[in-house]
Amino acid sequence: MRQSHLFTKTRKEAPADEVAKNAQLLIRAGYVHKVMAGVYAYTPLGLRVLENIKQIVREEMNAVGGQELIMTSLQPKDVWEETGRWSDETVDVWFKTKLQDDTELGLAWSHEEAIVSMMAQYVHSYKDLPISVYQFQTKLRNELRAKSGIMRGREFVMKDMYSLHATKEDMDEYYDKVVEAYKRIYERLGVGADTFVTFASGGAFTKFSHEFQTLCDAGEDVLYIDKDKTVAVNEEVLDDAIAEIGISKDELSPTKTAEVGNIFKFGTEKGEQMNVTFKDADGMDKPIYLASYGVGITRVMGVLVEKFGDDKGLVWPEAVAAYKVHLVGLNLEDAEIKDWADGVYTNLTKAGVEVLYDDRIEARAGEKFSDSDLLGVPYRVVVSKKGKENGQFEVVTRATGEVRQLTEEELFTDFS
Amino acid sequence: MRQSHLFTKTRKEAPADEVAKNAQLLIRAGYVHKVMAGVYAYTPLGLRVLENIKQIVREEMNAVGGQELIMTSLQPKDVWEETGRWSDETVDVWFKTKLQDDTELGLAWSHEEAIVSMMAQYVHSYKDLPISVYQFQTKLRNELRAKSGIMRGREFVMKDMYSLHATKEDMDEYYDKVVEAYKRIYERLGVGADTFVTFASGGAFTKFSHEFQTLCDAGEDVLYIDKDKTVAVNEEVLDDAIAEIGISKDELSPTKTAEVGNIFKFGTEKGEQMNVTFKDADGMDKPIYLASYGVGITRVMGVLVEKFGDDKGLVWPEAVAAYKVHLVGLNLEDAEIKDWADGVYTNLTKAGVEVLYDDRIEARAGEKFSDSDLLGVPYRVVVSKKGKENGQFEVVTRATGEVRQLTEEELFTDFS
Repeated sequence: MRQSHLFTKTRKEAPADEVAKNAQLLIRAGYVHKVMAGVYAYTPLGLRVLENIKQIVREEMNAVGGQELIMTSLQPKDVWEETGRWSDETVDVWFKTKLQDDTELGLAWSHEEAIVSMMAQYVHSYKDLPISVYQFQTKLRNELRAKSGIMRGREFVMKDMYSLHATKEDMDEYYDKVVEAYKRIYERLGVGADTFVTFASGGAFTKFSHEFQTLCDAGEDVLYIDKDKTVAVNEEVLDDAIAEIGISKDELSPTKTAEVGNIFKFGTEKGEQMNVTFKDADGMDKPIYLASYGVGITRVMGVLVEKFGDDKGLVWPEAVAAYKVHLVGLNLEDAEIKDWADGVYTNLTKAGVEVLYDDRIEARAGEKFSDSDLLGVPYRVVVSKKGKENGQFEVVTRATGEVRQLTEEELFTDFS
Repeated sequence: MRQSHLFTKTRKEAPADEVAKNAQLLIRAGYVHKVMAGVYAYTPLGLRVLENIKQIVREEMNAVGGQELIMTSLQPKDVWEETGRWSDETVDVWFKTKLQDDTELGLAWSHEEAIVSMMAQYVHSYKDLPISVYQFQTKLRNELRAKSGIMRGREFVMKDMYSLHATKEDMDEYYDKVVEAYKRIYERLGVGADTFVTFASGGAFTKFSHEFQTLCDAGEDVLYIDKDKTVAVNEEVLDDAIAEIGISKDELSPTKTAEVGNIFKFGTEKGEQMNVTFKDADGMDKPIYLASYGVGITRVMGVLVEKFGDDKGLVWPEAVAAYKVHLVGLNLEDAEIKDWADGVYTNLTKAGVEVLYDDRIEARAGEKFSDSDLLGVPYRVVVSKKGKENGQFEVVTRATGEVRQLTEEELFTDFS
């Protein structure tokens, strides 16, 4: 992509009402546009990052047999009344609206009831189970406060997977497989070492759910972690967990973290409430078992910004970056240099490298470098008059600041 | 994909309240799930078709320089008040909702105001123009009636592109390019010959907008088309268009059609109403020019079903089909046949062919064939004991019923 074709521009200042570091940097670099508190549009740069995160999650969900589908945002009242989750007292984040005949509708903040209601049409026998389905869905949540940028949106993208089973054993086994899939996701996103499977508050069916929590100063949670990093407990269940696991509170230190995933065994709760059953091998009606598995896609993007961004701007892990190489052209007012730089861009792109090419003629070198730092593309490659004369390219790794001088051959070998 | 792993199942009957042919077939074949009138979820099969349609549209929008982004569903009132489109009297399809502090919000039924409001931050000079951006967005429209299945949803997917320009000439030129891109889209979707660029009602800026209308008995529009098919006029503007073009009404015949695209020049209307201006080469403030370009992605899917579906079920054009080959295994209770059929499936998949494999052991041949007809995959390939002995595969083209006998070598040559 030629930078001169991007409609977004970098900004020196974020909007005054934006207090979160993640949103400040993303707005300044032109990855997101703030529509209102907790509601952000994703520009071409931001959408590329989101799609990269989604693709990693998609691959790992497919690898555990998940089938992608897409549910609806509009939700009928009756389905959620069956489980008592329609009431604003029980669920305080509903956005609600009405059809023209005054029929009340909800806007989906989660999809357990929607999935179970749909599956009632497809699941009749134990032979129809297990089933695992997932979606990337825009969720709407009427959050009272929305001051954490894209880490807590009123409109945000979530991957939510739901698995249905005939037995507790089958659910437990699959749940453990998904835990491993989640670990691979955070590993691939570059936060594996800082992400903990955490005991969190459960529900009717189990004492604990599991959260995936990533060390992050901007996080809204506090985790108690032991020194070997093998046990992590959300402070909201600290006393219960200590009693259950038999660990001493003294061995645990509090740390700020951000929730990047949450997985949950509903067991037979929804099946019983909604009367969704199947016939077992003996012809008996049994309620289905359900577990659900969420990854906040936009939140993860925010966490990556918070963790890796520095005082110069964004720093994207290579696996999710909008582009791998930021080709920064200098001396482009010289037509000969411009032709040559254009050629390097074309050849890198043809070699399959994802390149953002700063082809702006009027911008000064200093402006280009500070924009490049702000945009956070993993590798900055400078094409300049001096470089052309020396037959060398200066390559700077954004995350470490490491500077290398590569020949054209080395450049292509390294990046393609 | 192994059919035994699909959670959806075919059904003999559609829900009693479903009157549209497209939704009846899609529900019976397990491509969509009806949540309520006008609100449908897309199962793994349906989502694959949607994604294929989106990819064709994406490629053609990219080819005219469109940049993909994603706007938001939640909309602030003030932006739409600037143009008079917040009022329910002016726009009768708003779904509205409220924040917890009672601030009113709208749920986006279109995005012109959202785009122009965002672009005010990025467009300052004529040098920042033109810009062309598009999205695939879930739109919510509070339709009074929703009886046309996925052809008129209360929740549906639209590709909407917006182009911004410094001059009328530049807008006009780009608009004409998009007309050609749209023609390519409908050509690739298999309805090129039956789709007409149509004079339709305009707005403040132009007398006419252009609709893309496809011949379709289930359509909600009536088009007047001349016998050479070079002029098509929506009946809502018939008298005006006749006067403008200078054609006689006698030369036009009425035909039922479905709108599959709508493109529209707003000109400077939105820029003036919302005070979004740029500095021209002389440093004068001028309002931006805007045009918008929509394709109803889910509606197009419905139109394809209406046009091509027959009394046996769905018939997908190859370009959008969820799978290219439906490999139907017979005599799979014989372990030797099963092993061999599994091998054919594996090898076709490895060769890059998208295969749905009916690997069900207990289903009878007749059931498998009628399911195959209902699912509408373009090519049915039968693997059976008899075929194995003869070294031949029966290949049936769903659209034409043509039957061929291919050797294994011919099969792989034909499909990969």
